[in-house]
Amino acid sequence: MGASLPLAPIGIALVGPGLVGRLVLEQFAPPALRPHFRVISISNSRYTVFDDQSGTPSGETTYGLLLEALPPSSQAPSGKATETSIAELAPAELVDALAQRANQSGSHIILVDCTASDALPKVYATALLAGLSVVTPNKVAPAGPHELCQPIAEAQQSAGAGLFYCEGACGAGLPVLSTLADLVRTGDEIVKIEAVLSGTLSYIFNQFSTVQGPRAGEPALRFSEIVRSAHRDGHTEPHPAEDLSGRDVARKLAILARFSTPFTSTAATPATGPILHLPDGTASVSTQSLIPEELVDVRDPNAFVDGLAEHDAPFERMRSEAQAAGKVLRYAGVLDTQSGRIECALQQFSPDHPFASLSGSHLSLAIFTKRYKDRPLVIQGPGYPVEVTASAVVADAIRVAERYGHSFGL
Amino acid sequence: MGASLPLAPIGIALVGPGLVGRLVLEQFAPPALRPHFRVISISNSRYTVFDDQSGTPSGETTYGLLLEALPPSSQAPSGKATETSIAELAPAELVDALAQRANQSGSHIILVDCTASDALPKVYATALLAGLSVVTPNKVAPAGPHELCQPIAEAQQSAGAGLFYCEGACGAGLPVLSTLADLVRTGDEIVKIEAVLSGTLSYIFNQFSTVQGPRAGEPALRFSEIVRSAHRDGHTEPHPAEDLSGRDVARKLAILARFSTPFTSTAATPATGPILHLPDGTASVSTQSLIPEELVDVRDPNAFVDGLAEHDAPFERMRSEAQAAGKVLRYAGVLDTQSGRIECALQQFSPDHPFASLSGSHLSLAIFTKRYKDRPLVIQGPGYPVEVTASAVVADAIRVAERYGHSFGL
Repeated sequence: MGASLPLAPIGIALVGPGLVGRLVLEQFAPPALRPHFRVISISNSRYTVFDDQSGTPSGETTYGLLLEALPPSSQAPSGKATETSIAELAPAELVDALAQRANQSGSHIILVDCTASDALPKVYATALLAGLSVVTPNKVAPAGPHELCQPIAEAQQSAGAGLFYCEGACGAGLPVLSTLADLVRTGDEIVKIEAVLSGTLSYIFNQFSTVQGPRAGEPALRFSEIVRSAHRDGHTEPHPAEDLSGRDVARKLAILARFSTPFTSTAATPATGPILHLPDGTASVSTQSLIPEELVDVRDPNAFVDGLAEHDAPFERMRSEAQAAGKVLRYAGVLDTQSGRIECALQQFSPDHPFASLSGSHLSLAIFTKRYKDRPLVIQGPGYPVEVTASAVVADAIRVAERYGHSFGL
Repeated sequence: MGASLPLAPIGIALVGPGLVGRLVLEQFAPPALRPHFRVISISNSRYTVFDDQSGTPSGETTYGLLLEALPPSSQAPSGKATETSIAELAPAELVDALAQRANQSGSHIILVDCTASDALPKVYATALLAGLSVVTPNKVAPAGPHELCQPIAEAQQSAGAGLFYCEGACGAGLPVLSTLADLVRTGDEIVKIEAVLSGTLSYIFNQFSTVQGPRAGEPALRFSEIVRSAHRDGHTEPHPAEDLSGRDVARKLAILARFSTPFTSTAATPATGPILHLPDGTASVSTQSLIPEELVDVRDPNAFVDGLAEHDAPFERMRSEAQAAGKVLRYAGVLDTQSGRIECALQQFSPDHPFASLSGSHLSLAIFTKRYKDRPLVIQGPGYPVEVTASAVVADAIRVAERYGHSFGL
């Protein structure tokens, strides 16, 4: 298993060269990783450009050239002879083409899905069965309904199937899913997870509700004011309703639930410990929306933010109630494997809870298990550095490469 | 790589069936892990008992029988015919015997060192070169001098060498070293680590120095009183001077330093980023001892604790200074790869620092990197559950098994 074995580099087939995708490509480029990985194709929602040098060991084509060669998805197909390595492929066709290349070259290929769409997740199982590995920060499959998850879990049980990793899908690259996997696989049982999973909602409520309350002589900030400045400063999605809906938290909580108990129980991997049933994935998570009913249809972000000012009262009341109880408000996800409860809501936490001292846009997870009984294992970090999500993807790819015989030192 | 391939189970050769060692054996026993691992030998400091059924697939000998068959190290060797599978082996001889078994059986073997001694660490490199993997919570090698570390790092570069993992050696099983490895290998650079690494010192100073100060009308607890009750309640080593020396923190900090920058730079793994030079391992870490000079030679734990009461003044002064600055005292390790500073000392932290809100015997690490720039990645958990250290060992063994083709589901 030593590094000196001349193993063929693992092929990286990247789909979705957006913000995270480009950072992923960048992070594969340094000298330490170059002997282990080679970017063999880059795809957008319509086109794929292949590195036709990939078969030859001297091929030094960099991802930059591939990116340049990739036509925008809006462009009509062109028949130019210089573009023979460019193809218009549907997801299933891409998987076929990659599997064929893997067979021909004899080297393993990882499909790296950096899209947020549901097109590729539908063919993950096919890709795994065809011997490709899949690494992705895309939440669609792991947070999806049982029909989408189950085939992926089952595919991994097949001889010759590839590997599936999605650390970047949950917790902005914090080492959460690998930690859960280590706990569960060594026989621990997840009892409860409490989690602040939205950087934006963390940012908002860390200001709205603090242990020490507002400074003497200063009025407490109103909810709508905080959302307005968060939106203005780029701390929210383009439309803040996307954050306030709680959907992103629900998606991440669904993923945590899936990794807290086995995806599936088969003869080969019998279920140990309790199972959370999430037949509809995210849709099975009870989710409190913070969007005032009157504003659900306001499409214009600025009009939405203006409208919020009319709806500060309920938030003010919740803050007063929390303050009276000596607690703070945080929008958190909770999953309890004992009761089967799984929900996202604005909740009160006491001052000695790890969530009470959160600042900025920190995410935080408190994991209670059979072994971490009285005091949880806590993992905490900033909420939205895309660089860190990208590095979770690359770390997953390194994990795959290690399992295909590559060695990266300590 | 699927689970359905009938791979031979990985052999587990456990040395040191003490508290952690027995928990490790227990955690290998559940049905989910049984197809993947087989305990083939158990050793104490003198004897090794081999499972002679290990070659036959139907061999169902459990670790309990091996434990029963293992004579205490104090017992004189016996020539009884029934004990042919018991041998008196020095560490190097054990490695030879295991390597021979691995070659004969064709299945991989992991040497699991659950001792705290330095006997086995001296032969880790030999074991790796002989194709055995090494998994251990023993701090001696990773915190040891360059002469001990370097051969281990180099051995891993050789073709056919085994793998080395030691997550359990640092942070009581918290996912620290794997997280550092993920960061460093994806091109991040560790800038600074601040860490509360001793459960005992955490327990003592979380009571001694709090953000809110002593309760109104109640006198602040004196340092010696807290140590006395911690000792009485079993929160310290048998002799509390062992904790107060800071040595355990220094050892763990040395390990963190080794995983923050490459162990070694060779042509195959050129150093990227800064390197912390620790030629003497732990001995290179500047370490503040909290043992009053007059008490360094007091061998009796109770006399030591009684003596501490005469030395409360300097601690009182440090607490007052911290309080005046609006800060709290924590015994922490700090490593700074930019300045090369690496030290353990009683230090002041401001109320919004993650260490200020620690309670119980929590450990906490704040990791600042090129990517986690302004706000650190924080990992936190209880300080001394041996169960969790054991599960770090088993998780490492699972990692080795995965890299030898085994599959454990998500």
